[in-house]
Formats: sequence, C-alpha cells, structure tokens
Amino acid sequence: MGPSSPRPPTDPEELAPVNASHPLPDALPSWNVGAAKDALLAFVARVSTEGSADFVPPADRLAVHDNDGTLWPENPLPFQAAFAFDELRRRLPGEPELAADPMVQAALAGDLATLLAGPHFEGLLRLVALTHAGMTVEEFQGCVEAWLASARHPRFQRPYGALTYQPMQELLRFLEAHGFRNVIVSGGGADFMRVWVERVYGIPPEQVVGSTARTTFALKDGIPVLTKTLDYLFVNDREGKPSGIHQFIGRRPILCCGNSDGDQAMLQYTTIANPLPSLGVLIHHTDAEREYAYDAVTKSTGKLVHALAEAPSRGWAVVDMKRDWNAVFAAD
Amino acid sequence: MGPSSPRPPTDPEELAPVNASHPLPDALPSWNVGAAKDALLAFVARVSTEGSADFVPPADRLAVHDNDGTLWPENPLPFQAAFAFDELRRRLPGEPELAADPMVQAALAGDLATLLAGPHFEGLLRLVALTHAGMTVEEFQGCVEAWLASARHPRFQRPYGALTYQPMQELLRFLEAHGFRNVIVSGGGADFMRVWVERVYGIPPEQVVGSTARTTFALKDGIPVLTKTLDYLFVNDREGKPSGIHQFIGRRPILCCGNSDGDQAMLQYTTIANPLPSLGVLIHHTDAEREYAYDAVTKSTGKLVHALAEAPSRGWAVVDMKRDWNAVFAAD
Repeated sequence: MGPSSPRPPTDPEELAPVNASHPLPDALPSWNVGAAKDALLAFVARVSTEGSADFVPPADRLAVHDNDGTLWPENPLPFQAAFAFDELRRRLPGEPELAADPMVQAALAGDLATLLAGPHFEGLLRLVALTHAGMTVEEFQGCVEAWLASARHPRFQRPYGALTYQPMQELLRFLEAHGFRNVIVSGGGADFMRVWVERVYGIPPEQVVGSTARTTFALKDGIPVLTKTLDYLFVNDREGKPSGIHQFIGRRPILCCGNSDGDQAMLQYTTIANPLPSLGVLIHHTDAEREYAYDAVTKSTGKLVHALAEAPSRGWAVVDMKRDWNAVFAAD
Repeated sequence: MGPSSPRPPTDPEELAPVNASHPLPDALPSWNVGAAKDALLAFVARVSTEGSADFVPPADRLAVHDNDGTLWPENPLPFQAAFAFDELRRRLPGEPELAADPMVQAALAGDLATLLAGPHFEGLLRLVALTHAGMTVEEFQGCVEAWLASARHPRFQRPYGALTYQPMQELLRFLEAHGFRNVIVSGGGADFMRVWVERVYGIPPEQVVGSTARTTFALKDGIPVLTKTLDYLFVNDREGKPSGIHQFIGRRPILCCGNSDGDQAMLQYTTIANPLPSLGVLIHHTDAEREYAYDAVTKSTGKLVHALAEAPSRGWAVVDMKRDWNAVFAAD
C-alpha cells in the first residue's frame, strides 16, 4: 500500500474484544473464533506470560513456518517453479542447448507430474538447479527481483509477493509482539526466498532455512564474487527439515506451522518429547472458492495425508481455511 | 564469577576518558590507546550515528568473528582438537578398533604435524569426525559439556571456557551496544561451539557459522532423534567462510575480525567493493609471554602470512596483541 492510498478508517467492530478471555484488541482479526484461533492465542499466552508455569524465555521462543502452502499458495504450482519456468522461457532463445534436458521438456510441456515424481520432487529440483546455478549471487538476485516485479499469478492476476495469507501475516506479527523469532523453514531455495522475505513477510534473510547448495568464492578482477553451484545440494524437505533447523539454527522450535506431509517430521521434532511447551499447526486447504482445496489429491506439491492423520493424537491444531479464516489474502 | 565473589570496586581511573574525542566511559578498557582501538571506535561511531554520511541501518550491522586465535587461543592446539584427543583417550579402552586409524595413532603420539597437513587440516578433521559423529545430538552435547567442565588448558591450568580474550569480549559487548549482531564464523564445528557460545561469549547458538555435516532425523521408540553423521561435511575455512556466511546468514558483513590466512577470504568478502562502509581487523599474535607469538611459523593452526601482507593495502586494522592489549584474559 503506497503513501497515496492511506488505510481506510479502522472499523471499530474489528477492534472489539473477541471474547471475555481476550479483552484486548484482536491481534488475529482474519481468524474466526474457533478451536484453531483459541489454540494459538492460548499457547502464546501461556509461554509468554511471566509467572506462568509454562513460561518460556524469549530466546527459546522459536517459531518455524513452512512457506509454500503455509504462508502463501503452492498452486497451480510452487511459485519458485513458476519462476524457473519463466526463466527457462526467457533464456531458451539464447541457450537452445537447454532444450535437450528432459526436465526442461517436461516444464515447457506443462507436464508437472513428471517434474513432481519422486519423494523430493527430483525433476522440479533439477529444473530449479538449472535456473539457479552457474551465476553470481547478485545475478541470481537480479533475476528474482525482475521476475517478482513483472510476473502475475495466472488465477489471481496479482504479483506473487502480494499473495501471502493475511491470517498468517497477522500470526507472524502476533508472535513477534510476544517475543517469538519467526524462521521460515521451506523446501524452497534459501537464495530465492532471501531476496524478498524481508519485504514480503517482514522476516530478515538470516531467519530463512531453505534448500541450499554451495557457492564458490573467488576474487575476479579484484572483486569478491560468490558463484552459485549445484554441489552439495541440501533439500530442506521432510526429514531434512529437522536436520536443516538443527544445522542452520541449532535450537529446537516450540511452534511449528506446516501444511503437508513434507512438514510432518518438523512437526514431530517440535512437539514430541520437547522439554519446553510446544504447539503444532497444520493449515488444511479446504477452500476451492477463495484459494484451493487439496490434501490427499493434489496436482501441485502439498500432499497431506499422514500428517493430517497424526494430528489428533499429537494435539496439532488443524486450521480449516474455509471455516477458520475470514480473509485469505490482503485486500488489494 | 559466582555470587560469592563480588566484583572488586570499580577503579575510577578505569572509567576516565581515554582521550578528548571519546569523553564517555571507556567501553574497551583492555585496549591500549593506539591505531587499532582508534579504528574500531571510529568505525562503530560512523556507522551507528544517525545523520552520519556512513550510517548503516542496524539490520545491516553484521560483524563476523573467527573463533580460534581471534576470540580464544588456538595453542598448543585448537581447543576442539584437545576435546577430540581427550575423547579418543576416554573411549579407546572400550573401542580398541579406533586405534587402527592412522590419524588416531598420530593423535595419541602427539604428532600434530601429520594432523595439520593439507590445506584444510584433513587429518585433524578426520579425528574430529571420528569423535563427533555416530551419536545423537544430545549425546554429543553431553560429551562437550562434560569435557568443558573437567578439562584444563595445559599451560594456563584454567577451564578452556575461561580463556577467552578479554579485549574481544569487550569488543563483542561494545558492538552489541551499538546495534551490531555478532556472528562467529569459525572452522570449528557448529555443534561443538553451540554448546557453550551463549555462556562463554553471550552469543546465541543461531549466530554461529561453523563446519557442519548432516544429521539424520528419525523417530526411535516414538521419540524424535537427530543423529550426527559425516555426510556432506562442510569445512568452514578459507574460501569456505564467505560461502558459509552466504549460506547460513545470507547477508554481507561490514566488520570482520580474524587472525590467520584462513580468514583472508572473509576479510576480502567483507571489505572489498562492499557497498556499505566496512572494516577488517587482524589479531596478530605477538605476545609469547602472556599468550603465544606466531604468524608465518606456528606449530598449531593460525598461520598468518598472506593476510598480513594484504592488510596495509586494504586498510585492515592489525592488532598487535603485545602492544594493543593491556589484558589478554579476564582476571581469575
């Protein structure tokens, strides 16, 4: 929202107490009253209230959030894949040799099934790798910036960066206001996300754990240059997520938000036998009208079967997007 | 210092102005007046003073510090190597097969030269790997805790955690007080350092970039377990340091403190063609009486030749430990 479009006057109803036990202005106005919102409010209150038996020191208030499908959509395909496809199309005229790669062919044919085969979406990652390596860190950042400024989501016709979930943005701010540190823990590329996380989520780049590969460092013409490679690719998905959290952060989370079986391991890591109080949250995509509806069957990433089945026994809060969110995206 | 040993009354002389241009109580009392101290005070002032032409927003005030030889000694051998040797001795009676490894033999024979051969101290790393993998993260933390509580430095006869450089501790606090985030960027193991960095340096575990390998995640008897492996070993040294900073932090430092050629690449990355104001600092070990004197010739790690030669042309501040520090360690 630019300076020429001031916020509309606040609706006094929006600031009214949600219920008697939360007499302050509602910090999560896009969340409807219900079990999911109650679980979040109650958990944050009990770990951040000094004197509470479940008080957690601020340093240990680590909240981890998946990105695709948790903070923004992953349909009709993960946004980073859309970037990779667009990059291939942009580069193919000048680099026709790219067309020899079977995964490039699948991408150009729109054959997402081939790209998503395998437990870690190996085809998709191959494509991501082709479009994310062999260039300097700054060149890659420039590609992402240019794409983000120009590309539009095919269904919503808005820039991808404008399509974050409004209720999750409120949750991020609510957690920060209560001393939490939010870290994005995503299968997406760390270098891809770090270009825009500060602008889009208010989360600094060092609070991103993503898929990574090594860069090489050298002085070129006397100037330090980091070049992206495909070596030592680390896929931060499934069992990789707890490993990534340990490797990059070195601290166990107490709150974990995810939306798919790819988040099951980090939900377990967060909530099972954690010496500190903890909460797991699963975003369930139930709203085909305002966003997308999928779980066991999906044409994109984000399959959700095992984690959903495990949720009741673990006490993970399941967010029914249709029922629990009164807004999905921020207003235009 | 425990509650039963209160600090001695402050000496009023210690709080006297250092010179007319720094009329506040001296934040770096263990630093003698001189070019190195002046460079640090002037740099921090110009990047943290609002309205200064060189003002840097707090989010970009990233300071990276090597550990061994920069924040604490690396003689007679790096402290983590002392840990590894002690662990081998502790475990050998129960695991005699360890003795078949040539690097274990070198360690037991005190043959540091063999362990330090190769550009990345491969032998030493092999030893570190043997004593740092095949166990859970918690088991490893327990080993480090037990060692740190019991081991004593052979020369100074104090716990290793008590042997940090007092002037650098003052610098860490001074930087924090001026909105900097301190990150340790060390060839040492991230898992090793994260056990004690908060206690020893007041730096939280997530502000550590070190050598790492993957952990595997699994539920064992229903409990989440991260097991340390040797896979995908990343050696955070030399050209690896800028890569590690990029991979783990994703932001370019503006201040870099190191002490050896292993820090040359990150000094270059910090100070050459950085769009923000920057400063490089080299700790030169010149004090055999109070600590150790070494640069081109050393029996341990920390060889310093090329970075020292490069310092004048880059404007890196060179700290002469003997001349510039009036204290090396904190008083007992």
